[in-house]
Amino acid sequence: MTKQLNVGMIGAGFMAKAHSVAYVSMPMFFYPAPAKINKKIIVDSNELLAKEGKEKFDFELWSTDWRDVVNDSDIDIVDICVPNNLHYEIAMEAIKAKKHVFCEKPMAISSAEAIEMYEATKQYNVKTMVAYNYRKTPAVLLAKKFIEAGDIGEILDFRGTYLQDWSADPNAPLSWRFDKKISGTGVLGDIGTHVVDIIRYLVGEFDEVNAHMETYIKERPIQEFSADKLGMHIMDSSVEKRPVTVDDYCNFSIKCKNGAFGTIEATRNAWGRKNYITFEIHGTKGSIYFDYENRDKIQVCFANDPADRRGFRTIITGPDHPYGSNLWPIPALGIGYTETKIIECYEFINGIVNDKPTSPNFFDGCQIELICEAIIKSSQTSQWEKVQVLSQ
Amino acid sequence: MTKQLNVGMIGAGFMAKAHSVAYVSMPMFFYPAPAKINKKIIVDSNELLAKEGKEKFDFELWSTDWRDVVNDSDIDIVDICVPNNLHYEIAMEAIKAKKHVFCEKPMAISSAEAIEMYEATKQYNVKTMVAYNYRKTPAVLLAKKFIEAGDIGEILDFRGTYLQDWSADPNAPLSWRFDKKISGTGVLGDIGTHVVDIIRYLVGEFDEVNAHMETYIKERPIQEFSADKLGMHIMDSSVEKRPVTVDDYCNFSIKCKNGAFGTIEATRNAWGRKNYITFEIHGTKGSIYFDYENRDKIQVCFANDPADRRGFRTIITGPDHPYGSNLWPIPALGIGYTETKIIECYEFINGIVNDKPTSPNFFDGCQIELICEAIIKSSQTSQWEKVQVLSQ
Amino acid sequence: MTKQLNVGMIGAGFMAKAHSVAYVSMPMFFYPAPAKINKKIIVDSNELLAKEGKEKFDFELWSTDWRDVVNDSDIDIVDICVPNNLHYEIAMEAIKAKKHVFCEKPMAISSAEAIEMYEATKQYNVKTMVAYNYRKTPAVLLAKKFIEAGDIGEILDFRGTYLQDWSADPNAPLSWRFDKKISGTGVLGDIGTHVVDIIRYLVGEFDEVNAHMETYIKERPIQEFSADKLGMHIMDSSVEKRPVTVDDYCNFSIKCKNGAFGTIEATRNAWGRKNYITFEIHGTKGSIYFDYENRDKIQVCFANDPADRRGFRTIITGPDHPYGSNLWPIPALGIGYTETKIIECYEFINGIVNDKPTSPNFFDGCQIELICEAIIKSSQTSQWEKVQVLSQ
Amino acid sequence: MTKQLNVGMIGAGFMAKAHSVAYVSMPMFFYPAPAKINKKIIVDSNELLAKEGKEKFDFELWSTDWRDVVNDSDIDIVDICVPNNLHYEIAMEAIKAKKHVFCEKPMAISSAEAIEMYEATKQYNVKTMVAYNYRKTPAVLLAKKFIEAGDIGEILDFRGTYLQDWSADPNAPLSWRFDKKISGTGVLGDIGTHVVDIIRYLVGEFDEVNAHMETYIKERPIQEFSADKLGMHIMDSSVEKRPVTVDDYCNFSIKCKNGAFGTIEATRNAWGRKNYITFEIHGTKGSIYFDYENRDKIQVCFANDPADRRGFRTIITGPDHPYGSNLWPIPALGIGYTETKIIECYEFINGIVNDKPTSPNFFDGCQIELICEAIIKSSQTSQWEKVQVLSQ
Repeated sequence: MTKQLNVGMIGAGFMAKAHSVAYVSMPMFFYPAPAKINKKIIVDSNELLAKEGKEKFDFELWSTDWRDVVNDSDIDIVDICVPNNLHYEIAMEAIKAKKHVFCEKPMAISSAEAIEMYEATKQYNVKTMVAYNYRKTPAVLLAKKFIEAGDIGEILDFRGTYLQDWSADPNAPLSWRFDKKISGTGVLGDIGTHVVDIIRYLVGEFDEVNAHMETYIKERPIQEFSADKLGMHIMDSSVEKRPVTVDDYCNFSIKCKNGAFGTIEATRNAWGRKNYITFEIHGTKGSIYFDYENRDKIQVCFANDPADRRGFRTIITGPDHPYGSNLWPIPALGIGYTETKIIECYEFINGIVNDKPTSPNFFDGCQIELICEAIIKSSQTSQWEKVQVLSQ
Repeated sequence: MTKQLNVGMIGAGFMAKAHSVAYVSMPMFFYPAPAKINKKIIVDSNELLAKEGKEKFDFELWSTDWRDVVNDSDIDIVDICVPNNLHYEIAMEAIKAKKHVFCEKPMAISSAEAIEMYEATKQYNVKTMVAYNYRKTPAVLLAKKFIEAGDIGEILDFRGTYLQDWSADPNAPLSWRFDKKISGTGVLGDIGTHVVDIIRYLVGEFDEVNAHMETYIKERPIQEFSADKLGMHIMDSSVEKRPVTVDDYCNFSIKCKNGAFGTIEATRNAWGRKNYITFEIHGTKGSIYFDYENRDKIQVCFANDPADRRGFRTIITGPDHPYGSNLWPIPALGIGYTETKIIECYEFINGIVNDKPTSPNFFDGCQIELICEAIIKSSQTSQWEKVQVLSQ
Repeated sequence: MTKQLNVGMIGAGFMAKAHSVAYVSMPMFFYPAPAKINKKIIVDSNELLAKEGKEKFDFELWSTDWRDVVNDSDIDIVDICVPNNLHYEIAMEAIKAKKHVFCEKPMAISSAEAIEMYEATKQYNVKTMVAYNYRKTPAVLLAKKFIEAGDIGEILDFRGTYLQDWSADPNAPLSWRFDKKISGTGVLGDIGTHVVDIIRYLVGEFDEVNAHMETYIKERPIQEFSADKLGMHIMDSSVEKRPVTVDDYCNFSIKCKNGAFGTIEATRNAWGRKNYITFEIHGTKGSIYFDYENRDKIQVCFANDPADRRGFRTIITGPDHPYGSNLWPIPALGIGYTETKIIECYEFINGIVNDKPTSPNFFDGCQIELICEAIIKSSQTSQWEKVQVLSQ
Repeated sequence: MTKQLNVGMIGAGFMAKAHSVAYVSMPMFFYPAPAKINKKIIVDSNELLAKEGKEKFDFELWSTDWRDVVNDSDIDIVDICVPNNLHYEIAMEAIKAKKHVFCEKPMAISSAEAIEMYEATKQYNVKTMVAYNYRKTPAVLLAKKFIEAGDIGEILDFRGTYLQDWSADPNAPLSWRFDKKISGTGVLGDIGTHVVDIIRYLVGEFDEVNAHMETYIKERPIQEFSADKLGMHIMDSSVEKRPVTVDDYCNFSIKCKNGAFGTIEATRNAWGRKNYITFEIHGTKGSIYFDYENRDKIQVCFANDPADRRGFRTIITGPDHPYGSNLWPIPALGIGYTETKIIECYEFINGIVNDKPTSPNFFDGCQIELICEAIIKSSQTSQWEKVQVLSQ
């Protein structure tokens, strides 16, 4: 009989939706699923949202106090979908209560918090996943496969971007994402870290960084609603404004431990770019290019093709590629956000049930925080800064 | 309290999965949902698949006899996900039992069947939906909005394609999709009808057609497994072959009742094209281009832009576009197959609960069968053939 | 010592420029050139244009009477760059005077004229070239090479387009291109024939056609200037209008003698499309896609690539491809209109000097006229019409 | 009567061809041309090449000694198309002889040389042009126009690339481009400077840079031919190798004086990229993206478009855009390398004849050398380095 795991979801916003869809859909894609997931309880400090979340995402119970969940012995998994500043406390309590933890990114608001969280997972021996879901796009998994097989040789250099435009309007409201106390960092933690995760995954560990960070729009109107509308609700310019306390542009150079060099650029102010996660990697034997806005495809050039017919191949992921037998039977039926979350969910649950390593886990998430710390430091010193690398 | 509707699913293959994911996910996207859907029973004539389907797709019960479902007074919705030749009988019984019917496409294997099915829905006053899901892609819905608003003026001409390559290898096995008795037609019904549906939806009713159909690969190896692998399992060339009895290339010209002229091309033998559903529509005031392989985007050119800055705009669908508040909060987080099925599911359920018109319903599905009939006739007579148009 | 050929250019408009640039540049690309071309005399019935043409395009002499050129024993090549209705008379006189003829497309305004012209070339043994220059794009030449080598197998089906938008505005002036007496046909001869030429070249001879032609904009304002501005000069809507006597939309299906089936679509009213010459060809072993608006590239999918790394390869033409050693030393330095005309010029001159076959020559041009005739007939009969095929 | 200018061309390789084509074609595009150019004499130290150059590029005379040209009172323009280390001496002599100088890029092998060259032009009052031709692409000129009109607001950040792959193979021969004594720098001067030029032109003067440079392939086989085949001739791996003394990867961050921040990446080792000159510029009111491999197009997003129809517009340059009336009458007939050189040539000749400022001139070229110097210094110090900015 299929195992069942009880989930306690902390937070009832957009990410709660994404995770809930994954919990119910995953077993339909992965059969037999390592476990079925029971959506036991959802928590939001806002009672209205908690109740609505229970209905909307089909949980059995709701609460306004996350401690109810963390201390409930029925709960196997604590799923943290609240703003960044709350991750640490919840995760620490959950780990101590021996819950497996699925944590939204970034993992914490400081590397100190992250290290403590990671150390706790070792002590209490729980499984973790940090929700850097974009690396689960089948096309990215295929890039990984090609790189690991040596198909593009040794990696020489790379470029990554994550560009959006939802905050480009100065009257986009002052979401919690612009408040350092809650978010820790701005564009860096919010989206830059996704590309850091992908590049670490594909290229290797970071050694040094050299960063530039800026806050172009220095104040924004207060928003009159609590939920995070990601700037889509443009305010009247007469509304009272308060300071933005985080970066909204971030650009850094990276030296990897294996010698590869590259840059990552992140902004939410790039008019016309919506979810423009791209990477281009050049190796001694080939190149790879990916653009998430066109995510069913990956472009790969193999040096050993004959010169007259060499060029980027546009490979459309499907049954012949990673997780191909689990997803849809025809390539380009369509990979959406949902599918990336379903794969992420599968790997986490599979890790728990079959005691397999998960990735990106709290080690990876913590390492990303250490990279962010070096980035921030470099943006202040205007110098190359070493990245502290934890031993695993 | 939220209404609940009981579904009986007939068929336990790929489409059963897509529909099941939609049933559980829809209420998380559309809140409050018009109803929650209870996956009551799944049927497959193959007992193993029926049992597995129950587990995989989380139904309460399973059966090998679809009559169990149709005659169960608890069942509100009969969802038909079996090969084409079985649609008619099941749907007729379901309709007579006053069930709402969600039917995979094409709706039937002849227009005679389809007309009878449609007439029955009028008599028994049930809601129907035919699963031409691609028109539910937000980018296609946006195209519809622009066209209805007159933003591209009167439509002059158009071109549609649906190209795949899973049957291009002559050793791709003889799926039921190559057997006229089961499928009715080949590429025409299987994929061509999706584009017919989109063009009818965007451009208008068809008046005459002029078609060319061919069977390039005249026999294929018998497949030793029952499930339809869509050609991904290439057989050894020594396996016994049997005749293909349907078209595998189809190309037709269309005169619409409003004077628009265009062509549609469909094949599953176009190496490199995977799910290449495209349309390009030229109007007196602008043009629209869509490519489903890059489905978060639509390209629109408006004639009234100043000449020095006129060009196709690549609009990435998101919160500012159809169903934007229901889907994901940032454009290009990613529309996949799942999202198209969720919208389709919502519209069907909403139609049932709130007595709203659904589309494409059995009228549309039937009209598409009449178009197919004219296409087939034209491919035989090599002449323009009138399309019979039903009164609604 | 390098041979020198004297050219007499008839017409002093846009095409005279393109040809003149080619004449002076060709020997810099092809060294040693088969001959240098001496721009001896340019003719325009408009004295002002003739004089200006002499200066602008650096001819030795000018004239207002093309007979001066045709009868000048110094002239080796007569280059016909005047409107279509004048081609026949000039070419016939030139051929009879044993001049080699470079003729703008379409070759004539009827197949009767074209046949006579072709027959004359056989009788007088002169070299000819019809200026279907787009097939000289290196990417198209590479497509030809792949097809001839069998790299995409037997051709099954294809699609071609030529879409522009310069006549989409109803107030674009009544150029001679809208006057049947001068142009013979409208969009069909003006641009559709370029795609006919490319498809004939790549796929094979046409057997039957089934066509639809329309005139969307039935009258246009008279233009007050003689030169053809191709609709870029939008007139005031109060200007007197006169009827358009040719087609401005053309769409036809083709059965080739080798069994391949396809369609070609041509319009100058497709907002946003500027010079959208595309073709897509599906064969038993691969596919090719080309879009002239992005002409340095061609996309090719080879079926025999392993399934997990199969996809369209974007090949950028350069030194490893046709005429690669003559053009630029790095791919994508840039192929423009000029380069296509230079290759065309080289092949014509090389044909003359070294008695090599030229292509497309008057045989090809004549065959295209026969195809046009069948297209026009089919658009009138609404039936498939046979294409008369000349013996060479 | 049209003025005539006599050109002395120094160097008979690839660039001599490009310039020669421009000289003869320019007056056919720009009518009346400011002057006709008489190709008087061509020089190459290799007598064979000099003689061949005379024939090939249609010069009146040839020589093996550039001093013949510089001291010839008939010569108006000295056109320097030799390797970088020879620019300084030739240019200085030419300037002192009051010749106008058209110089291939980079302008010199050190900023010291470049400053002296620039100062001399002020003293002797001659016109200059440095051949950064890519900024003459009509799409780039259109970007400039939009930026100057404020259409994308204040520029916030940008990214530029110039990627090729002709040196990616370790057995690509040791061209002079890999020899510091001749070339000064490697990828930086050879191609990186083109993007520096474009960004300076579009965004503004550089203030500080932070650079990383590497030499991936540290030795290469000696080439047995003198002409520079740009790596297209792959050597046998047994051939003797000698050290590469320049960079083959270069990546730098830039702070502009106006506050804009960005990065530029250049390599000739990026498999699959051929002439991948791209830039993306984000401003407060819009964004611009350009890719030279698809150079007839530019993509622009305007923030003030309504949200539901906002997106990158793909504008295809033609008659409605810069130099539109001079080039081809229909957009996307095709801008190639030739067209960029023709515009460059026109602006230089127009500057000489009508005493107009030219751009990029020796001031710009010199400033680019100063930027390169700061880049090289930064790559050594691993720190931000100030760019010296000359007064004009």
